[in-house]
Amino acid sequence: MALSQVQRDELKQSRTNQYSTRRATVPALEEILYTPLSVLDHGFVRVIDYMGDDTAIVQAARVSYGKGTKQIQQDQGLIHYLMRHRHTTPFEMCEIKYHIKLPIFIARQWIRHRTANVNEYSARYSILGKEFYIPASEHLAAQSSQNRQGRAERLNPAEAQRVLQLLREDAERVYQHYEEMLNANEQGEILDPERSGLTRELARINLTLNYYTEWYWKIDLHNLFHFLDLRADCHAQYEIRAYADVMLETVRRWVPFAYASFVEYRQQGGHLSRTALNVVRGLLQGQHITREQSGMSVREWQELKTLLGVALEEKVAKTC
Amino acid sequence: MALSQVQRDELKQSRTNQYSTRRATVPALEEILYTPLSVLDHGFVRVIDYMGDDTAIVQAARVSYGKGTKQIQQDQGLIHYLMRHRHTTPFEMCEIKYHIKLPIFIARQWIRHRTANVNEYSARYSILGKEFYIPASEHLAAQSSQNRQGRAERLNPAEAQRVLQLLREDAERVYQHYEEMLNANEQGEILDPERSGLTRELARINLTLNYYTEWYWKIDLHNLFHFLDLRADCHAQYEIRAYADVMLETVRRWVPFAYASFVEYRQQGGHLSRTALNVVRGLLQGQHITREQSGMSVREWQELKTLLGVALEEKVAKTC
Amino acid sequence: MALSQVQRDELKQSRTNQYSTRRATVPALEEILYTPLSVLDHGFVRVIDYMGDDTAIVQAARVSYGKGTKQIQQDQGLIHYLMRHRHTTPFEMCEIKYHIKLPIFIARQWIRHRTANVNEYSARYSILGKEFYIPASEHLAAQSSQNRQGRAERLNPAEAQRVLQLLREDAERVYQHYEEMLNANEQGEILDPERSGLTRELARINLTLNYYTEWYWKIDLHNLFHFLDLRADCHAQYEIRAYADVMLETVRRWVPFAYASFVEYRQQGGHLSRTALNVVRGLLQGQHITREQSGMSVREWQELKTLLGVALEEKVAKTC
Amino acid sequence: MALSQVQRDELKQSRTNQYSTRRATVPALEEILYTPLSVLDHGFVRVIDYMGDDTAIVQAARVSYGKGTKQIQQDQGLIHYLMRHRHTTPFEMCEIKYHIKLPIFIARQWIRHRTANVNEYSARYSILGKEFYIPASEHLAAQSSQNRQGRAERLNPAEAQRVLQLLREDAERVYQHYEEMLNANEQGEILDPERSGLTRELARINLTLNYYTEWYWKIDLHNLFHFLDLRADCHAQYEIRAYADVMLETVRRWVPFAYASFVEYRQQGGHLSRTALNVVRGLLQGQHITREQSGMSVREWQELKTLLGVALEEKVAKTC
Repeated sequence: MALSQVQRDELKQSRTNQYSTRRATVPALEEILYTPLSVLDHGFVRVIDYMGDDTAIVQAARVSYGKGTKQIQQDQGLIHYLMRHRHTTPFEMCEIKYHIKLPIFIARQWIRHRTANVNEYSARYSILGKEFYIPASEHLAAQSSQNRQGRAERLNPAEAQRVLQLLREDAERVYQHYEEMLNANEQGEILDPERSGLTRELARINLTLNYYTEWYWKIDLHNLFHFLDLRADCHAQYEIRAYADVMLETVRRWVPFAYASFVEYRQQGGHLSRTALNVVRGLLQGQHITREQSGMSVREWQELKTLLGVALEEKVAKTC
Repeated sequence: MALSQVQRDELKQSRTNQYSTRRATVPALEEILYTPLSVLDHGFVRVIDYMGDDTAIVQAARVSYGKGTKQIQQDQGLIHYLMRHRHTTPFEMCEIKYHIKLPIFIARQWIRHRTANVNEYSARYSILGKEFYIPASEHLAAQSSQNRQGRAERLNPAEAQRVLQLLREDAERVYQHYEEMLNANEQGEILDPERSGLTRELARINLTLNYYTEWYWKIDLHNLFHFLDLRADCHAQYEIRAYADVMLETVRRWVPFAYASFVEYRQQGGHLSRTALNVVRGLLQGQHITREQSGMSVREWQELKTLLGVALEEKVAKTC
Repeated sequence: MALSQVQRDELKQSRTNQYSTRRATVPALEEILYTPLSVLDHGFVRVIDYMGDDTAIVQAARVSYGKGTKQIQQDQGLIHYLMRHRHTTPFEMCEIKYHIKLPIFIARQWIRHRTANVNEYSARYSILGKEFYIPASEHLAAQSSQNRQGRAERLNPAEAQRVLQLLREDAERVYQHYEEMLNANEQGEILDPERSGLTRELARINLTLNYYTEWYWKIDLHNLFHFLDLRADCHAQYEIRAYADVMLETVRRWVPFAYASFVEYRQQGGHLSRTALNVVRGLLQGQHITREQSGMSVREWQELKTLLGVALEEKVAKTC
Repeated sequence: MALSQVQRDELKQSRTNQYSTRRATVPALEEILYTPLSVLDHGFVRVIDYMGDDTAIVQAARVSYGKGTKQIQQDQGLIHYLMRHRHTTPFEMCEIKYHIKLPIFIARQWIRHRTANVNEYSARYSILGKEFYIPASEHLAAQSSQNRQGRAERLNPAEAQRVLQLLREDAERVYQHYEEMLNANEQGEILDPERSGLTRELARINLTLNYYTEWYWKIDLHNLFHFLDLRADCHAQYEIRAYADVMLETVRRWVPFAYASFVEYRQQGGHLSRTALNVVRGLLQGQHITREQSGMSVREWQELKTLLGVALEEKVAKTC
């Protein structure tokens, strides 16, 4: 994991500093503040700053609902209530700032979440470091034929070997040419005093999408939950999920009550369509319902079976 | 329903115009274009403009998923797929613009939906018309003791009568004083040439929250669905629901496939928490589960029963 | 200024707490943290939380521009550079949260700034307190005939007296009827055990727009500057300007370098149109330019004269 | 310029269709509707849909300012007024949708504009076509030593030649390896029936940043002006400016009055800091002001001279 020297010095300093504040403070998050948490082969996530805690959510809810919230005495209960009823604004009262190092192809997915603040390293201004992502061979999978966005079984060793070789050689070569076009090396030292070197904003276009970039990314808790709901999900690409998983852990440290509500009502809950609800209602009344009767597609029927953890038609047969 | 004279003239003109365009056009929506649809006692909703149709959603999805979407042949099927998997961006490719007349207290709830464009009538610049909302007596309900945001049984006739009288008299009186402070009547005619009259931006502060305002409101289809999901819901205040219901009907005319998906997967679907899913799984396996065993609160248990349309504990007793 | 008893107790507690943190901390802002700063007759602004400081802006800029920013050694210089070149994202890395008590008619203007997070006291859930805004008599002005959104000369004492009387009497009366309709007083005590009382979400519609509401409002520094640029401006209504002025002072304490840049490049800078630039260029070359020659409207010409602090045509006459 | 065969067929169809509508329609924009406008070597911009016209801006302004806007009789005058006073919301009432083909490194800058809707071609789902950007040799410039984001003089022919060779060869090679890893060619035909082929979402990471992607991009006019103000600016990278220039032309066709206001007040206007305003005031009063006296930095002084089109110190000397 590659923090630059400057970043390592800053990190050391930041970890040493202790200030006095009247603001809400979360010791479990302070513990890992500034510390890079490793993701993929060269990436990291580190929490740089935060605002608010579980109590800030409760405080905002109480200003909204006034004396009305006295009934719900406990903070966890109130936060569960807010999550369950989609009262999302109190969660927006918490904010967190990350420093993240990630491959460009992941940055391209990530940035689609628009309600966040970003400052990215600019390869127009500075030379991009020589760090690129090479998947571990166990993550090299074939294209799924069922699901166009998913991965199927692993490549066989020979094919995997060849893929890794191509990825590594191409990444090495494009960087070498990047330096040649810039007429400068990674440290910015001029290579050939006779040449002027191509402008950075153009030289960078020769780099491949697995090169690492980095950014500061700041977001409120409600929008972070939305991000994590989509990106820590099994439909997300493995590489962004790896980041989301590490971030989930930082959220658990930061706002344990809100985290528990997120897990209960969002991440591990499930959404049923009108038709699926009708199927469940029928089944609970002891009816026998086939997929054809339900009107659901094969895929939806399959997903419902998975969600309900039972072989639908068989089960009904048995209970009958 | 009070369109101003200028608005009525414009309306007549707009309804007569016919232009030729290469853009996607929706005859069922054109039919009601510009026509005010009545809401509450003086309010209205009218569609002023729109961009895109069901095909525009499909078109955007196909650019995203490329040849991958060939498998899903039919537009309704593809739109169902998008809605089900929360692929929300294709719905953002459709846009609609409304002209809405609504009481200020409703405008205050409405404006909380931030991802929209608004131009509101300004009482800093112009004199607000004398139109205020008086609920129909069947909507005068007592405060619910269960649900702090809901209404309970209707007021008895005597109490209802008194409420209507107070609302009417106060609305009349504050407007009379508004005119006196302005030293002008509704038409802007000066009342007393000896007085200068208070500036509009201050005089308006004497008006009550049931006075009508109006605005142009423009939003994309994804965010409109989010608005309608929350505001056409039984937890929403009756008065905003009245608007949402009329708007749902305009959406049905505009994008019938997307509307059908919204009804199937959002409006009439249901979300189950992790715990609720476990209860359903247990029940489907023939287990007997009490609320205490489930770990759910009384209220959540109640909501789950309502959603599943069965008396949970009794039902299980019966099937066993 | 009316903090509720609960809020006063919380305030006392919050002011006493001292925590240890590794986060960036701003002593000058900590000094006034939680303390209500008085605005208008019953309103206040208080800073509840903050994230980041001037150094956080610099840090974000340096991640963006990498080694490129080494040239600009000093933080104030770099922040000036960012503000001048509209590199706005580093300012988004700072966040602040306010608790604000303000009249409803001001809340309606305020909420138009969409890139912020809000939790407002809900009169659907709770009874609104009896506090309303009455302007000081020196702020009672006539409607400007020049500028439709501005105020002209002060009302004469007799007219002002009458306005204040009407505002006070109407505010008192509508609250009395609010209590009668609710069948409850401000403290929520039932008035008449025989009556059921109107639901809160309807009773509130009888209140006037000068009643106070309160909210938590959270925003990043870039968007806060945009808000302050528009609302601390002489075109803004006096009452919202009063809030903006107090908030500017909190920003000065929080991020003094960014504040200085805002004053230099935004608040006290000026924007010239293409035509105005041409006029200035001509004048600096010693040309005599009349309004007619410039092609500017009377009003724009007037504004340019004001901005340049000179009587344009006369001046040129003199220098010629 | 490479529209796919499917797109060409659609285009032909779309250009033929003529519908009847009551909506505001802009013949000058209809003329080029759907037609791809060439940008760079393989890119294009084409207008797919639009909502509103100059009159829609005026209409929204008139609902806001009510009878107050009667004074400003003409539409162009009113739109000038709105632009000058930063009344931005009426411009949000117009919306436009583009289909754009652009290199990935430009897409990465572009997407930073968050208030827009996007549907991008997904290389997780589909195979990316073999099209990459190679700069024209006259755009191959050296890195500016003054301005870290700018370009200096052109590379000499030999160095330029070498750069073009490297860019071409690397782009060719990574695509060849992309196909090999996918075990499929551009048309999706399997290359070697013995191999399973790497999943698309991973194979794509080997492509360079100059590969073309495409997307539907929808935005309101206010935010489009903000985009164009920054991206049609001389500080923007040449390649994104090429797109902005073509889009400006579509805006001129669409809303000629708003376009004229944008040029007058934004694009060709200028912003002066407090200090710069003071310098101009002094100069207009006949004072001699040196840079040192002004307190401005060398760079700001230079920029002011450029803006005012005069050699500041010399000029003053002359007039004195």
